[in-house]
Amino acid sequence: MDRNTKIGIVGLGVLGGSYACGLSEAGFSVTGVDIDAETISLAKERGWIEEGGSDPTLLSSCDIVVSCLYPNVFVQWIQENQKYLKSGSLLTDVTGVKRKIITAVNDVLRDDVEFIACHPMAGRESKGILYADSSRFIHANFLIVPTENNTEYAKQTVREMAEILQFGHIKEISAEMHDRMIGYLSQLTHVIAVSLMNANDNPDLSEFTGDSFRDLTRIANINESLWPQLFILNKDYLLEEIDSFCGEMQAFRSLIENEDEEGMKEKLISSTERRKHFEKK
Amino acid sequence: MDRNTKIGIVGLGVLGGSYACGLSEAGFSVTGVDIDAETISLAKERGWIEEGGSDPTLLSSCDIVVSCLYPNVFVQWIQENQKYLKSGSLLTDVTGVKRKIITAVNDVLRDDVEFIACHPMAGRESKGILYADSSRFIHANFLIVPTENNTEYAKQTVREMAEILQFGHIKEISAEMHDRMIGYLSQLTHVIAVSLMNANDNPDLSEFTGDSFRDLTRIANINESLWPQLFILNKDYLLEEIDSFCGEMQAFRSLIENEDEEGMKEKLISSTERRKHFEKK
Repeated sequence: MDRNTKIGIVGLGVLGGSYACGLSEAGFSVTGVDIDAETISLAKERGWIEEGGSDPTLLSSCDIVVSCLYPNVFVQWIQENQKYLKSGSLLTDVTGVKRKIITAVNDVLRDDVEFIACHPMAGRESKGILYADSSRFIHANFLIVPTENNTEYAKQTVREMAEILQFGHIKEISAEMHDRMIGYLSQLTHVIAVSLMNANDNPDLSEFTGDSFRDLTRIANINESLWPQLFILNKDYLLEEIDSFCGEMQAFRSLIENEDEEGMKEKLISSTERRKHFEKK
Repeated sequence: MDRNTKIGIVGLGVLGGSYACGLSEAGFSVTGVDIDAETISLAKERGWIEEGGSDPTLLSSCDIVVSCLYPNVFVQWIQENQKYLKSGSLLTDVTGVKRKIITAVNDVLRDDVEFIACHPMAGRESKGILYADSSRFIHANFLIVPTENNTEYAKQTVREMAEILQFGHIKEISAEMHDRMIGYLSQLTHVIAVSLMNANDNPDLSEFTGDSFRDLTRIANINESLWPQLFILNKDYLLEEIDSFCGEMQAFRSLIENEDEEGMKEKLISSTERRKHFEKK
């Protein structure tokens, strides 16, 4: 990537807007495509895009196109609009699950455009360009999820883009490992927070709430349009993680029921030990 | 309470030590009883207690005695040592569950000593006087859990003590409501964090961990000696909360399995709505 590299961003929501913000601040020429005219106006006003609109032909001069679309419109968008992409250009994305997306995109994509899958782990519960801000990337993880067919050029280019956006850790990972990890660390934890919040209908309890409950349920505030799609796309792994977690819950339930103080103690020592690996380094 | 009120604290761990710290700083004469000689030396060195040792007769001149003992030694301690308490004195506690403790204490306690149950909601995963510090009480909740037999004097006295210790919210609540609330907000959330941590044995995942997972599992680092006792003492309510939560997990699991995007959306909207009540005010 050099300063002549032209970047197109499709979907200027909270992630796409943050990409446009960071890349334009770093001196790149950014083109934005979004169906919402107000979003485009705002992005122009802030200097995040040089040109933009709802017309995908705007992307025809872009060397890199970043799709920041929701997963269930991403593949359809490619089918309808890939004719406007520049021959030899790179297509990348921000989708939170990978196996099915990579297969689906590569099944339909033109041979002269290369898709390299990425996952910037910097999503938040908020939606829309009003919450976009490239500072969210600082210290965050950026995962590159290549297939065996991806070129070194593609991997190197998205790595450079992540560096320009100031991501804290940039790492390559296989689609299987990615989806397994996300199923446990992110998707299962969101299902837990949502279920905990829905399990008890008593807003009066809020006055007694301590920080632990607040911490645990912060992510129960969740983008309800995006996450169900991500859950379905990672259904196999996520169901396994739910079953494994619910098995642990039932095991602990039995220990309480049997008043097995020693058995509980072992579980608590084990969780305390394991948690130590997850302290911030 | 005035500055002549003499306060005794039994068990100078993280909570007892913090009480001694806050009350001595506010100008009260504090006596400490602990079986650990080093703990007593440290409390004296820091000026948190005027006198102290392992001898319970030290408490004979105290107007208020705060038991900061673990629940399963608390009642036995009363049986063995109540003869040293001053006639007309108040006995209070810091135990995290209430129904069984209140009954058990009142069953054995002398008639000329009044027990008034309290729960300072300021525990942490740490143990011992080295982690004691009265600043933990600022903004925390202090719950007074009276029975119909408690005097206004007792309720007023512990309220004043909580004010002196700078608790953020001081509130009276029944033992039933207290244990129900604690079963959901605190105990269930700890069982969840522990089970989540124990459900997946992969320390390699830590490099990908985002803040949501860290927030959710912070409390998986837990005092393994204390919590099993608290779980058992609140077993009936806690098992109900676990069953209600696991029911929600299974309901969400079915929605994922059936790829019911709309059904999931409803659950996420509901959890987002409910979570709003729990924002810090």
